[in-house]
Amino acid sequence: MRILGVDPGLNITGYGVIDVVNRQVKLIEAGVVRGKTRGSLSARVREIHLGVADVIETLKPESVAIEKLYSHYDRPTTAILMGHARGVIVLAAALADLDVTDYPSTQVKKTLTGNGRAPKSQVQLAVQRELRLAKLPEPADVADALAIALCHAYAVNVNHSLLP
Amino acid sequence: MRILGVDPGLNITGYGVIDVVNRQVKLIEAGVVRGKTRGSLSARVREIHLGVADVIETLKPESVAIEKLYSHYDRPTTAILMGHARGVIVLAAALADLDVTDYPSTQVKKTLTGNGRAPKSQVQLAVQRELRLAKLPEPADVADALAIALCHAYAVNVNHSLLP
Repeated sequence: MRILGVDPGLNITGYGVIDVVNRQVKLIEAGVVRGKTRGSLSARVREIHLGVADVIETLKPESVAIEKLYSHYDRPTTAILMGHARGVIVLAAALADLDVTDYPSTQVKKTLTGNGRAPKSQVQLAVQRELRLAKLPEPADVADALAIALCHAYAVNVNHSLLP
Repeated sequence: MRILGVDPGLNITGYGVIDVVNRQVKLIEAGVVRGKTRGSLSARVREIHLGVADVIETLKPESVAIEKLYSHYDRPTTAILMGHARGVIVLAAALADLDVTDYPSTQVKKTLTGNGRAPKSQVQLAVQRELRLAKLPEPADVADALAIALCHAYAVNVNHSLLP
């Protein structure tokens, strides 16, 4: 099973594609789609959408995982802008007839590290270990995208046999 | 000049297309794009995006006007979901190489009625009068979409010669 994990952001959207074969997880590709930081909102949503659609078309994942909606009560405008990015990413998946599953950030962290409030550095280390990477995944957006993809891989293996 | 005004919503997105010819505004078409109320988020963003893209392809507006981002401090989750709808609408315009201009709700109301805090019913009446409609525009989402289109029509006529 091939899984695409996405960490949405209007400036940088991280993505990570993994394969689950014989209960082993394997990195296929990971990277970022950058919105033109100085571009208009429409230039940025266009770039994010086309970037994610291109990853889907090229790497042909069978399912997509994304962080669950949450409310930035302290920064509502950030939350609305994040909604724009998330909307055009979910659309890219929907137009390719792919299901989108979402996971709360705490579930992703707990699955990867055993601690729902683990710091980012601990999640990065867990992603590196699980995927047997030579280096820590960078930037954080890529690590987060891979963490979500791994969380989905473990969630669909109901017996969690993949868990460390 | 042909203008598409859009009032984004995950359940109902209103749209209104008007022409400005010889300083006269004229209704071309108005209606709603409905997200499947019981559908998943991805089914809904898909429907909204394809619906608006279809209006653009069919009626070929030269510019798009939409309400400016604002923060629903009281309902952050609604704001994020609204961001999803707005994102895929802005994307439809961007993919058709159309500029998107946004106006604060207060500017739309002030332009149409002279009062930035006018109630919806007063805005509906103003839209009906401006476009010489036989009936009040319904539902409110359609009236709001037409109000935004009219606001843009007046804004680009710098001398506001179209104003009542």
